[in-house]
Amino acid sequence: MSTPPIAARMADIAPFHAMAILARARQLEAEGRSIIHLEIGEPDFPTPQPIIDAGIAALRRGNLHYTPALGLAALRTRIAAYYSTHYGVTVDADRVVVTPGASGALLLALGALTNPADTIMMADPGYPCNRHFARFIETQTLAVPVDADSAFQLTPALVERYWTPAVKAILLASPSNPTGTVIPDDDMRAIAALCAARGAHLIVDEIYHGLIYEGTHQTALAHSDQAFVVNSFSKYFQMTGWRLGWLVAPDWAIPALDKLAQNLFLAASTPAQYAALAAFEPGCIAILEARKAELKARRDYLADALIKLGFGLPVMPQGAFYLYADCSCFSDDSFEFARTLLEKTGVAITPGLDFGSHQPERFLRFTYTTSLPNLKLAIVRLQQQLKPTL
Amino acid sequence: MSTPPIAARMADIAPFHAMAILARARQLEAEGRSIIHLEIGEPDFPTPQPIIDAGIAALRRGNLHYTPALGLAALRTRIAAYYSTHYGVTVDADRVVVTPGASGALLLALGALTNPADTIMMADPGYPCNRHFARFIETQTLAVPVDADSAFQLTPALVERYWTPAVKAILLASPSNPTGTVIPDDDMRAIAALCAARGAHLIVDEIYHGLIYEGTHQTALAHSDQAFVVNSFSKYFQMTGWRLGWLVAPDWAIPALDKLAQNLFLAASTPAQYAALAAFEPGCIAILEARKAELKARRDYLADALIKLGFGLPVMPQGAFYLYADCSCFSDDSFEFARTLLEKTGVAITPGLDFGSHQPERFLRFTYTTSLPNLKLAIVRLQQQLKPTL
Repeated sequence: MSTPPIAARMADIAPFHAMAILARARQLEAEGRSIIHLEIGEPDFPTPQPIIDAGIAALRRGNLHYTPALGLAALRTRIAAYYSTHYGVTVDADRVVVTPGASGALLLALGALTNPADTIMMADPGYPCNRHFARFIETQTLAVPVDADSAFQLTPALVERYWTPAVKAILLASPSNPTGTVIPDDDMRAIAALCAARGAHLIVDEIYHGLIYEGTHQTALAHSDQAFVVNSFSKYFQMTGWRLGWLVAPDWAIPALDKLAQNLFLAASTPAQYAALAAFEPGCIAILEARKAELKARRDYLADALIKLGFGLPVMPQGAFYLYADCSCFSDDSFEFARTLLEKTGVAITPGLDFGSHQPERFLRFTYTTSLPNLKLAIVRLQQQLKPTL
Repeated sequence: MSTPPIAARMADIAPFHAMAILARARQLEAEGRSIIHLEIGEPDFPTPQPIIDAGIAALRRGNLHYTPALGLAALRTRIAAYYSTHYGVTVDADRVVVTPGASGALLLALGALTNPADTIMMADPGYPCNRHFARFIETQTLAVPVDADSAFQLTPALVERYWTPAVKAILLASPSNPTGTVIPDDDMRAIAALCAARGAHLIVDEIYHGLIYEGTHQTALAHSDQAFVVNSFSKYFQMTGWRLGWLVAPDWAIPALDKLAQNLFLAASTPAQYAALAAFEPGCIAILEARKAELKARRDYLADALIKLGFGLPVMPQGAFYLYADCSCFSDDSFEFARTLLEKTGVAITPGLDFGSHQPERFLRFTYTTSLPNLKLAIVRLQQQLKPTL
């Protein structure tokens, strides 16, 4: 009567190393230490008040039954309209699937499109859950190592170089987690064309697309109406705990996504969907744009300060709230280095290990989801540890 | 440049036929027809006011960031305490995983425990998503046909008869959807022992366990601390649209479930978790118990009325809000029969086809999630259609 074994996939699905750092940070905080959190991948801002108010109004009205699996019609319409007003791209509301977070959208897209014999091409470093979603459904992944010379992104040349006939989907993220870099429009258009020519699906994670601090960048939908575009109310709209995202898909995929969403989720959260109806209102967008300006100021400060401390930052990220900094001049093991910095300075940072196997030991991901004064304090502490003679 | 193909699994994952009935029913309503909905698998009651109030308070406080992947500590403690007060069974809060609905709990449990070469044994008829969860992660299913003589449930004898060495998990539901029948404690204990002896995991869906109208029935956790028990805030607690459930698992499985939950969901909805803290308060339980009494009265009425109309109901279901009625004396195709009844009488009912391949054409699932006056009106309409000479 021994315990029956767990699934083989569990050996390949890693926990977030950031969580180990966070757990130790919380422990130190419980012991009275002051900790500055630069490891957490969610905005420190509260959900904007107009969204909260819409949520409270929905709770007061009290119709909190299941919505259709594809989402509230009114919300799908608002999301479609956002592509028109924000990008000038026409998206039919029928192509919008409202999901339980971007996680739900990624699971739906990968599950509806790929078989166990198929391969999903993605960048390494990248969002760790992507390879785990694939592993969960027994699909293969091809993690293409990317470096500063391609801004840590796939390029058309890299796609061609690493292409195999087993590739059935290419998963891009723009801006990327952990690097914050954006894929240039020309590259996105060329990769979309490659996918079309070679019979692969293009899936683009745009959950940080609302947080691009300079330049104008098109949604992948501007380049291809066959792209599967994932977005979220978590990051730009700052509704993390509400768990709401969306997927824009080609017409022909909607029936499959609908039945898969019915079976996997039934539907996304009803209170969250009603609250999100307020997210696109001008008053809410004004709040979000002010916060975005604050995030840009933080990025500018932190990037400059890390470079002055001696970290490598060969590419200035245009978006998200991450800096993927090279710490190889301080340590040849970023995980141990992150642990040491936490213990000695009380600054919590995520090691590269969370994001893949391409030189993770060289990198740390700093998030700027804490206030500018906190960031400055973190830099003072790091400076005392790393350059005590200054 | 043809469209690349979708995943093979999508051919095996069916949409809910109830949705086709519901869509037609909505269309008829839009045309002015009066429709009585006996096809919808969610309580008609609103979320109890104490839960709504707790949700509003959480939104006002405004800390709506991600919770830990396993859930709010306070909620895990309340859920654990529920097993003590309600069943007299001690469950450590560390064994409770809060999930995005019972759907999330089932996906976690099946994903953490089974490989593609493994088989999950389950009853046919049963909740359709179960076989689709398995198909999603490429695991095999063994659907055991069950009939009225075992109250449409697996028994120890059936488990032994259909056992194969590939069986790595047995998935039971008590009460069952679509049949509302409960597994006797002795059978549950014996099946738990069989699982232990043969090295299989036992997963028990108890999402309707709060809605058992007579007798006392133990949770499967009373029989085995190795059982994986799925429950939900949707049905008894009437929080359907909030998307919140839970899984109680053996100690040793928690780290695997934690990392899988991190990767698949990040966490369950934060507003829903804070709201659910109020669900176990005596004032809320009093509301729920009154509603349960109302559901029992509806069951008693509808079961009796359907039998008088000529439907077969060989087993009186003890729980949930479903009656799985044999309509073979009226039709040899329950799907067409359901469509005809909808068109002719405006009564919407789910055909057996949603629940498996064992004689679905003989059965209709009636839900009693509408008021007693509505149920009576439905019976009058059915009577006029089926027994016009009475």
